[in-house]
Amino acid sequence: MKHYPRSLSNLIGSFAKLPGVGKKTAERLALHILRAPHHEAEQLAGNIMELKQRMQLCSRCFALSENNVCTICSDPIRNNGKVCVVENPSDMAAIEKSAAFDGVYHILQGIFSPMDNVGPEDIRLHELFTRIKNEKITEIIFALNTTIEGDATATYIINHLKNYDIKLTQIASGVPVGGDLKYIDPVTLRRAMETRLDTK
Amino acid sequence: MKHYPRSLSNLIGSFAKLPGVGKKTAERLALHILRAPHHEAEQLAGNIMELKQRMQLCSRCFALSENNVCTICSDPIRNNGKVCVVENPSDMAAIEKSAAFDGVYHILQGIFSPMDNVGPEDIRLHELFTRIKNEKITEIIFALNTTIEGDATATYIINHLKNYDIKLTQIASGVPVGGDLKYIDPVTLRRAMETRLDTK
Repeated sequence: MKHYPRSLSNLIGSFAKLPGVGKKTAERLALHILRAPHHEAEQLAGNIMELKQRMQLCSRCFALSENNVCTICSDPIRNNGKVCVVENPSDMAAIEKSAAFDGVYHILQGIFSPMDNVGPEDIRLHELFTRIKNEKITEIIFALNTTIEGDATATYIINHLKNYDIKLTQIASGVPVGGDLKYIDPVTLRRAMETRLDTK
Repeated sequence: MKHYPRSLSNLIGSFAKLPGVGKKTAERLALHILRAPHHEAEQLAGNIMELKQRMQLCSRCFALSENNVCTICSDPIRNNGKVCVVENPSDMAAIEKSAAFDGVYHILQGIFSPMDNVGPEDIRLHELFTRIKNEKITEIIFALNTTIEGDATATYIINHLKNYDIKLTQIASGVPVGGDLKYIDPVTLRRAMETRLDTK
């Protein structure tokens, strides 16, 4: 970007480091910032710094939080006996959006991935087992992605909990609501068929 | 984005204001910033503020510049007699990338657009005519987009320069290099045919 003044090409370079942002898009974004009102640019820069300064992980469930304990863990209405195990904060946000769960979460902050050298020690498993020991948990719901890595992580946890009297469940796999059958992959269709429900 | 802590949803909101960035992308970008090293986030925020503080327009050609006169206008090697008229800084950057032009520029900072109430007074036309009066310009090259608005702007300037002994040219329209004829629109093909060159 040597055809732009230094401060503009610097910003293009910074934007181009973001995921899914190529050189052309970075150029467009930087030129937008250039034309945008001063307060809008200031707000964006300020919000970036504030996020980095304020955000931490909830000491109990490892959700993103601005306090030591997150809003869900400190909400008296949530059912503390039901713990939904997810891989990362965006999975948790997706479930919260569905408004279908009234329990609490445990964010593993990763799943097993032998390719990237991620094993049981590298994710928040130890903390999950400590919670299971110390809290009165009645049900653990696995909402991990249905990949080999997700399944391996769930299996590891299930094996570890053999001697506990805790209900273990997994969110259902199947055809998405509004999905067109001819576009659904065969593995999903097979699972939807195998776990079919009575239409009472 | 009420399922995220406030500082995260603020940043998602700021990113979503950028052109071509939807809610999902804004979420992905904000989560990337969250995971990115502190210095990377600091650099992005710093570059945004620096751009807004340092960037100005060249007092002669209205290119983006960090100084009163831009690097091209103050370059002794550039031919000051040839002025390429473009709509905006990114058009100028595109021509600079081609390395096919050794003259200087005049950035109109817009073109006529009756729909948006943009007329001769709203773009840097007066400044172009002042330059033509005061500088020794031998050729003006129009590199405006080949739209109705671009053509109208060029025609207006051409009419205004009837009494000057200045060569007026326009960059060629035609089939892009490497372009496949069957995908070229008929208007472009017609123009390419009309302006065909002898293969000497």
